[in-house]
Amino acid sequence: MSWQLGPGDLPALALGATLLGTGGGGDPHIGRLLVEEAMRVHGPVTILDPDELDDDMLVIPTAQMGAPTVVLERIPAGPEPLAALRRLEAHRGQRAAATMPIECGGINSMIPLLVGATGGLPVVDADGMGRAFPELQMETFSVYGVPGSPLAIADELGHTVLIDTEADNRQMEWLARGVTIRLGGVAYIAEYAMTGRQVKATAVPRTLSLALSVGRAILQARRDHRDPFDALAEAFGRTIYTHVRELFHGKVIDVERRTTGGFARGHARLQAMTDSGEMDVTFQNENLVAVRDGQQVAVVPDLICILEEDTAEPITTERLRYGQRVRVIGVSTPQLMRTVQALDVFGPRCFGLDREFVPVEQVNQASDATMEEWEQAPVG
Amino acid sequence: MSWQLGPGDLPALALGATLLGTGGGGDPHIGRLLVEEAMRVHGPVTILDPDELDDDMLVIPTAQMGAPTVVLERIPAGPEPLAALRRLEAHRGQRAAATMPIECGGINSMIPLLVGATGGLPVVDADGMGRAFPELQMETFSVYGVPGSPLAIADELGHTVLIDTEADNRQMEWLARGVTIRLGGVAYIAEYAMTGRQVKATAVPRTLSLALSVGRAILQARRDHRDPFDALAEAFGRTIYTHVRELFHGKVIDVERRTTGGFARGHARLQAMTDSGEMDVTFQNENLVAVRDGQQVAVVPDLICILEEDTAEPITTERLRYGQRVRVIGVSTPQLMRTVQALDVFGPRCFGLDREFVPVEQVNQASDATMEEWEQAPVG
Repeated sequence: MSWQLGPGDLPALALGATLLGTGGGGDPHIGRLLVEEAMRVHGPVTILDPDELDDDMLVIPTAQMGAPTVVLERIPAGPEPLAALRRLEAHRGQRAAATMPIECGGINSMIPLLVGATGGLPVVDADGMGRAFPELQMETFSVYGVPGSPLAIADELGHTVLIDTEADNRQMEWLARGVTIRLGGVAYIAEYAMTGRQVKATAVPRTLSLALSVGRAILQARRDHRDPFDALAEAFGRTIYTHVRELFHGKVIDVERRTTGGFARGHARLQAMTDSGEMDVTFQNENLVAVRDGQQVAVVPDLICILEEDTAEPITTERLRYGQRVRVIGVSTPQLMRTVQALDVFGPRCFGLDREFVPVEQVNQASDATMEEWEQAPVG
Repeated sequence: MSWQLGPGDLPALALGATLLGTGGGGDPHIGRLLVEEAMRVHGPVTILDPDELDDDMLVIPTAQMGAPTVVLERIPAGPEPLAALRRLEAHRGQRAAATMPIECGGINSMIPLLVGATGGLPVVDADGMGRAFPELQMETFSVYGVPGSPLAIADELGHTVLIDTEADNRQMEWLARGVTIRLGGVAYIAEYAMTGRQVKATAVPRTLSLALSVGRAILQARRDHRDPFDALAEAFGRTIYTHVRELFHGKVIDVERRTTGGFARGHARLQAMTDSGEMDVTFQNENLVAVRDGQQVAVVPDLICILEEDTAEPITTERLRYGQRVRVIGVSTPQLMRTVQALDVFGPRCFGLDREFVPVEQVNQASDATMEEWEQAPVG
């Protein structure tokens, strides 16, 4: 069933998308302001359920590409992502019937809505990452056989670049990253053009809805003076993400962060509030692995989210600071993202980590009544 | 008048093009072997005089892009430059009636012949640099108003990139260089698509012929046991390049060379054979400025060529070695390349040099009978 997403939904969506960004994905705040303004002029955006797409309709996903640390300082003018979509349409000689996120975490939850509002296109409630990832080949689209090429890049000057590496999505990422760096560290792209049939076969379904319900759960809990972490567990428990675990509760004692090769890379070190325990979180734009007292407790593609301890406000890697008091949660990703083929594309080794994927719910048994309670709740 | 260029012409063309490469442009040897093989299969290539082009015919120049130091080790498979041309044709929805060099120095004298032979296209006897330059905006095409965009890049895997920066040829170079670096330091391009009318208005005319006659002059002098430097002066004297000056005679005592940002950059230091005089030659792929005992004696866009002292064999920057005995000559470039607009695009300041352009024939008065003799010969 299609539904309308309006300006009133954007605060919750931005909050949920920041959490799903697992520290990366770029802060959705700027994107949200652009979408709000576009909706003020053009009205709400129609959201399409992936199961109800026509098999032959053309869907062209749109996104921002770049290091979150740069995006903070280099604000989009607005028309760039639609220009990328139009460039790809011109190349294919075919108009898109809808756009779609390539990642549901971070600013890329907002970019397709900006394209939808300004271009008069519906947006599909699905994405290719089910979270945020730093590289363009790290897509379920790619895992399950959709080529990313041709990819169109547009900048704020109206300049465009079209990259066609045929089935080689890794080389596409490599070249597009080079262009993005030379465009100043951020650019706007359209890629992984596909049919409705391919969306159903390869996309992570209903992740715009997921971001929205996660954001709403936190906001509602704050209003109700409930623990937002309980609300979060309930919200995920009703989706294909199922399991939430608290991995750590402590304060940030060290952050090492540098922008190299077009990415924000580094580590955060946390110290427990109640004992001498420590946690180390490694990131490349997104949080990749959480190690507690030497033991791996969560690893990509499962979600590792660092949240402010009282409000559950997610903290992106570029905003991590000494002294912040946080809770780190791990969230299980859907089965689609944990297959052997998927782990070959965005498992730990794809980030240069010498680690095996172990599901977060396997390492961390549910430890309190609240968690057991929502785990027993009906799923789906 | 059109004419045929066959395999027998290639040794002289390669020699002349290496000299016009002024130390850069990439060694034409590999390109020559590919053209020879292509001509063996497809026959000679038709060369068109620029004055006789139809005003409305579409000409698409083709070239190799990259650092000469990399090109030495990464040999083209053959079809890449034609693939770049075909990509640009597909984008424009129009077939090219001819191809053309963007630079007459170095390997790019050969690449359009490879395209011509394998693609069944004639090649225009003209180019956009009148020598070799390291960057794509450094074209008379660009100086006199032809946009380089859209530019197509192809590699040996059949991958393509299309860059469109509209009228901004400097940004086109910047992005294409980034892609070339990520393709391993060398790529093949088609750019500056233009009409026959635009060729007549913007190209440096008859530079394939120039390379051929310069190469033939040296080879003939060697056979006749004449000084090839005299033959060289005569050959240039019959063209719009007019003036040749010997700037230095000595041996190489130091070469500093590094490949950074996709270019081979560095200095060569020479010591005189007969006195304590020294010369310093700065290069970025090509030789940019020659300084003798602290005084600038030749500067870009005039040609600075380092030649083996007896045979006049040109020595490219990547082949410069300690102990080589050489003569350095300066050659005046045509008026088309010395206008205020031209110096704004490829004058000394465009290479980060804090120097003024001074014509080589103005700094260095003709100093012996031979030189005076050919200077008084009729020109053209």
